[in-house]
Amino acid sequence: MTKKPFPLSKVYTLIEPGPMVMVTTAYKGRPNIMTLSWHTMIDFEPPLLGCVVSNRNYTFDILRTTKECVINIPTVELAKKAVGCGNTSGREIDKFKKFRLTPVEASCVKAPLIDECYAHLECKVVDAGMADRYNLFILEVVRAWIDPRKKDPRTLHHRGKDVFMASGKTIRLRNKMK
Amino acid sequence: MTKKPFPLSKVYTLIEPGPMVMVTTAYKGRPNIMTLSWHTMIDFEPPLLGCVVSNRNYTFDILRTTKECVINIPTVELAKKAVGCGNTSGREIDKFKKFRLTPVEASCVKAPLIDECYAHLECKVVDAGMADRYNLFILEVVRAWIDPRKKDPRTLHHRGKDVFMASGKTIRLRNKMK
Repeated sequence: MTKKPFPLSKVYTLIEPGPMVMVTTAYKGRPNIMTLSWHTMIDFEPPLLGCVVSNRNYTFDILRTTKECVINIPTVELAKKAVGCGNTSGREIDKFKKFRLTPVEASCVKAPLIDECYAHLECKVVDAGMADRYNLFILEVVRAWIDPRKKDPRTLHHRGKDVFMASGKTIRLRNKMK
Repeated sequence: MTKKPFPLSKVYTLIEPGPMVMVTTAYKGRPNIMTLSWHTMIDFEPPLLGCVVSNRNYTFDILRTTKECVINIPTVELAKKAVGCGNTSGREIDKFKKFRLTPVEASCVKAPLIDECYAHLECKVVDAGMADRYNLFILEVVRAWIDPRKKDPRTLHHRGKDVFMASGKTIRLRNKMK
């Protein structure tokens, strides 16, 4: 793998703009992938994320049982595969095989990284108390990785149904906010 | 105002791609604005949102007291004003005056819409139980508005500090997910 460690204090810069992410889990040695856009930063450091995973998804029970996952961030080149992973269920197929994605061992969790993605956040579920009511899991990022070769990654953003958006031009503005 | 009502069932299409939003509140007749990027959809219909508002912000106490706000979505034309609203505190200034923004009366809440934004979600705080621990408010969208003249709105997305991103080109892919 050609990724390098990414500082935990900067994880918010990857999640805050709202990219579609591919969440990997592993249960009894079998890895799985789901695609989602319903997430938010909750705190800067240690980086906490809120992730909404429908209880109809295979990933919901696995997250609750294993308390681990990896948030992988794809770029536009992966659009078809990311959408494909969202349209299928890990109950029926092996998505790594079906979509020709490469699992890479993570360092702190059993869920694999997806090598084709440009960034990865290894996460522990630190609070599942809102899972019953809101399908909401609080994740702590314990390790982060980024592809140093991707200088200006085009992230994917979902606008509903068949419509997706690629991140566009960069705007620089003096800003006191983190 | 030239906005038209927007169906509640489609609110997720506005929030899911992760735009920066300008949150308006009103306390004792005085309106205020804050800018934030830490939000996620929680449910489709009625549309529920999770919004993280730091307890250091003036808006935090107002949200908890009034249990109402409006989520206004700006486009890139408003970038400087949106960032300006994020860099100042309503404890000290009237941001509508300072940034020459136009308050418009909402229909279901006392907080005003910002006329210059292209979409507006009138919200009630339906659960503040996670505000102490995570600064997280659960909002229900009770009314939504959109500017029918903006066919391809360029939303703003924050990448940390001085770096912002404008939404880019549209990609269409067959998708079974909502």
